Amino acid sequence: MSESSNQAEPRYAVGVDYGTNSVRALVADCRDGCEVAAAVFDYPTGEAGVIVDAKDPNLARQNPADYVAGFDASVAGAVKAAAEVDPEFSPERVVGLGVDTTGSTPIPVDKDGTPLAMHEQFRDNPGAQAWLWKDHTAHAEAAEITEKAEQHPDGYLRKCGGTYSSEWYWSKILRCRRAYPEVFEAAYAWVELCDFVPGWVTGNLDPHTMARSVCAAGHKAMYHPEWGGLPSEDFLASLDPALVPLRGRYASEALACDRKTGGLTEAVAEATGLRAGLPVAVGAFDAHHGAVGSGVGPGTLVKIMGTSTCDIMVAPGSQELADIPGVCGIVPGSVVPGMFGIEAGQSAVGDLFNWAVSHFTPAKYGEGGEAHQKLTEEAEQLAPGASGLLALDWNNGNRTVLVDPRLGGLLVGQTLHTTAAEHYRALIEATAFGALAIIQRIEEYGVAVESVIACGGIAEKNPMAMQIYADVCDRPMRVSRASQTCALGAAIFGAVVGGAHPDTSAAQAAMTGALDREYRPDPAAVATYRKLYGLYRQLHDAFGGVADPPEALGHVMKELIALREAARGESS
Amino acid sequence: MSESSNQAEPRYAVGVDYGTNSVRALVADCRDGCEVAAAVFDYPTGEAGVIVDAKDPNLARQNPADYVAGFDASVAGAVKAAAEVDPEFSPERVVGLGVDTTGSTPIPVDKDGTPLAMHEQFRDNPGAQAWLWKDHTAHAEAAEITEKAEQHPDGYLRKCGGTYSSEWYWSKILRCRRAYPEVFEAAYAWVELCDFVPGWVTGNLDPHTMARSVCAAGHKAMYHPEWGGLPSEDFLASLDPALVPLRGRYASEALACDRKTGGLTEAVAEATGLRAGLPVAVGAFDAHHGAVGSGVGPGTLVKIMGTSTCDIMVAPGSQELADIPGVCGIVPGSVVPGMFGIEAGQSAVGDLFNWAVSHFTPAKYGEGGEAHQKLTEEAEQLAPGASGLLALDWNNGNRTVLVDPRLGGLLVGQTLHTTAAEHYRALIEATAFGALAIIQRIEEYGVAVESVIACGGIAEKNPMAMQIYADVCDRPMRVSRASQTCALGAAIFGAVVGGAHPDTSAAQAAMTGALDREYRPDPAAVATYRKLYGLYRQLHDAFGGVADPPEALGHVMKELIALREAARGESS
Repeated sequence: MSESSNQAEPRYAVGVDYGTNSVRALVADCRDGCEVAAAVFDYPTGEAGVIVDAKDPNLARQNPADYVAGFDASVAGAVKAAAEVDPEFSPERVVGLGVDTTGSTPIPVDKDGTPLAMHEQFRDNPGAQAWLWKDHTAHAEAAEITEKAEQHPDGYLRKCGGTYSSEWYWSKILRCRRAYPEVFEAAYAWVELCDFVPGWVTGNLDPHTMARSVCAAGHKAMYHPEWGGLPSEDFLASLDPALVPLRGRYASEALACDRKTGGLTEAVAEATGLRAGLPVAVGAFDAHHGAVGSGVGPGTLVKIMGTSTCDIMVAPGSQELADIPGVCGIVPGSVVPGMFGIEAGQSAVGDLFNWAVSHFTPAKYGEGGEAHQKLTEEAEQLAPGASGLLALDWNNGNRTVLVDPRLGGLLVGQTLHTTAAEHYRALIEATAFGALAIIQRIEEYGVAVESVIACGGIAEKNPMAMQIYADVCDRPMRVSRASQTCALGAAIFGAVVGGAHPDTSAAQAAMTGALDREYRPDPAAVATYRKLYGLYRQLHDAFGGVADPPEALGHVMKELIALREAARGESS
Repeated sequence: MSESSNQAEPRYAVGVDYGTNSVRALVADCRDGCEVAAAVFDYPTGEAGVIVDAKDPNLARQNPADYVAGFDASVAGAVKAAAEVDPEFSPERVVGLGVDTTGSTPIPVDKDGTPLAMHEQFRDNPGAQAWLWKDHTAHAEAAEITEKAEQHPDGYLRKCGGTYSSEWYWSKILRCRRAYPEVFEAAYAWVELCDFVPGWVTGNLDPHTMARSVCAAGHKAMYHPEWGGLPSEDFLASLDPALVPLRGRYASEALACDRKTGGLTEAVAEATGLRAGLPVAVGAFDAHHGAVGSGVGPGTLVKIMGTSTCDIMVAPGSQELADIPGVCGIVPGSVVPGMFGIEAGQSAVGDLFNWAVSHFTPAKYGEGGEAHQKLTEEAEQLAPGASGLLALDWNNGNRTVLVDPRLGGLLVGQTLHTTAAEHYRALIEATAFGALAIIQRIEEYGVAVESVIACGGIAEKNPMAMQIYADVCDRPMRVSRASQTCALGAAIFGAVVGGAHPDTSAAQAAMTGALDREYRPDPAAVATYRKLYGLYRQLHDAFGGVADPPEALGHVMKELIALREAARGESS
């Protein structure tokens, strides 16, 4: 490999991305963000890394020991692989390390910050494990927190869309108090996974002083500077007096990810092949780092499109930003330091398409991936409006803007000739309408969304979906350059705390690069989708309970037929 | 076969049923209505008997010569078969013959009543053929007739639900005037198929004097005694002055089916093996005779369930009967002489289930009949409400009570786990809700519907559907004894005009017999379906344009979830 004289000495950063089933470590080049090497470690405990309970489908836990083993193995693997493929690489040229994880995934710990599950007596106690993000055992507690927070003068839910989730920090802690009193009693504090990992690898686990991510604190634990950090003692006492001491066992200030938590310990350095003392950044949630790795910035929303989507947006910290009803979180510094981080999401996207393939697609399309392919080929031939169908994307509820899990899907306009491919396209369109509803809500509160960067499997593999999104949203849809955007985002913060770049924006500019895949809106399609979105919005508001009474609906089916006939060149 | 001394000498009647693809002749025993023998003749012309046009999917015509050939062949076949299987049978013991046909299926004829298509110059002219019931080329003409009839003081649409159909007599004649002027010019008159056949076989084809069925005239040609028969000349002139002469080339009084049109001609007798002079009854439409053959009577509605349904009801002639909005027809004597005949219908029933199997059912259920079977087995395990789904049965529009073809299907309540079997059951339930909407409309206007007799394939082969209908409608659902109810109804009128029974009711009592298959409502299911019907009705009125503004809909998905959880024994 030739050295280029006009480039600085190569420097590298490591990003470590904790997913639901595995952890991935990435070695990135600080100059351009390119992936040098990566390694993945599958969590050994439970089913694909998740401890489940056949009697309770809501339960999802993880073994904290897997996180520790996974860090060492994945980072060591990536470092070793980097040395093999890149002659310029050496561990000494790694300047920093960043971490992102699933969340909210709180872990009960002892006074030293060690997970209770690492103690013999709690090893097999499900309450003592990490409570994985998708654990929904705390739904009753979430409802109770929502109710009490609504009554509290501080308005703790103003920054997280008005509804507290069963997936989040306090719901799970309160649930533990009730379902596993012996665990709750033994737990000195509760630590988010994205704080635990940086704390563990830098040896800073004291619950009082360890770095707490503002991303986790702000989006999931109702932390906000406006009311002095975590919710007040009187509020926690109204839920359960036993929660009150936990407030004091938490850093008084939660931090953004351009802050260093400490240096790598000797032991971890030895296990991974990195140097001791290597700067480690404050952690954050995967979607937030995914947004950073994709190139989020003012005016550019990032959609992480998988089974569901997470939508991440930032707004300049100087902006006067109102609370945005129905948006899951608005937290200063939670994505890009110095900016407001805004999080929204759609409850089912890829899941919706997979459902249609599994349950509503006849044999002639084949199954699985082949069916997706054939349905797409047929659906691509359809002009906007030509199916005569309109769907609501609520089979798994609505996360943003209605924040209501107790909703269902809806499909309207079927004839006796409606095909599975038309249905498939209508579902893609429905998720695009849902995406537009989020964009409109964010814009209504003063944050312009000029373009969208999409990442994840759908963004990379489904050009039809991307074109539909561009046409429905009437905005360019760009595809993130990196496929491992979360790990890249973590590496970007590793590069920042390691001094390779002066700040996050500079690091992003260098390391996320230019995006060459862009889908531009087609004016004719935009015009048709504008009409369809009007009907979508009417059904959205009617069935979402926003419009009471709803506007008249007698025209909906007739307009769909008229659009269908226009698209097909038929007359009635 | 032993003779029973307490029974009279056996007598027989012949019923001839003209369907869409074939004609069926049935020899029935006048004592008990049992089928002695039958024979079927497939129309040789076109695709399965229907002349179609690849360039115009709305076109559907038939060759009148097929009707003539079909009469001779099917009746001769049935008579021959009867003699073979029943030693008591002889042609001399046949007392009368009745005919039913599809409709409205008008045929342009010359001054002698001979179809123009039987003349060399018109043989291949599509406009000169019989215009089959499902020919929809006259949709623009139908809309024009509806508009002008609404403005006319006589209110010609009051007896047929307020909307004139493209399937009906005058629409097709007016269409012919515009699309085939040379045919229109040559046509002295237009004769319904159900009048043509009795006229042909008895030699009474003079358009002025031949027997015209009140069933066809009243339900499809806007004939009603209240305004002196057919619509007035001024009304016809408002459509097109060329229609005016046709009014005078029509019997002044249309007749019920217990009236004799004449006796079989020598030629037809020879061709069929029956005796010359055999009394032939006035004809009617198939569904009406199907209702008679099924046992329709005051308080008992007959549903003829096939790809769509036809619902037939009668009310005593002594009753003061208001016009029933949205019901296709109310005609004195059109079903049972001396009673009002009431006709309604659902645009898609079996077609809806077939669509779900063809387009929305995955490979694991198999295809075609096997898929229906497996979906049914799985759907039978579901309690009412357990799917969480609710559908509108409008994939092919709504015939009764909205009389609106420009509607579409709707499905609400899907989750990411919704199965094809749940969808299948929801569609069956939707058609049952549609059936209840018709029953309620008829009852609102003073005609009680105490029980329902179903006939047709679904009634005979789908016990789950029948039980759902019983539970949704909260009325016993009985299954017609005969499988060929239309032909049996025709034979019943043959028996009446032949003197085997004093009147239609007596003939029905003897020849339709006791029904041994009955589905009784289950109180628990009735209670759940009452709630679901409330939601169905709300969507029906909202999307049907009846409720403006609609009631709030925000509760719909939540109630479906609550019903689902209650049915499955879940809590939220």
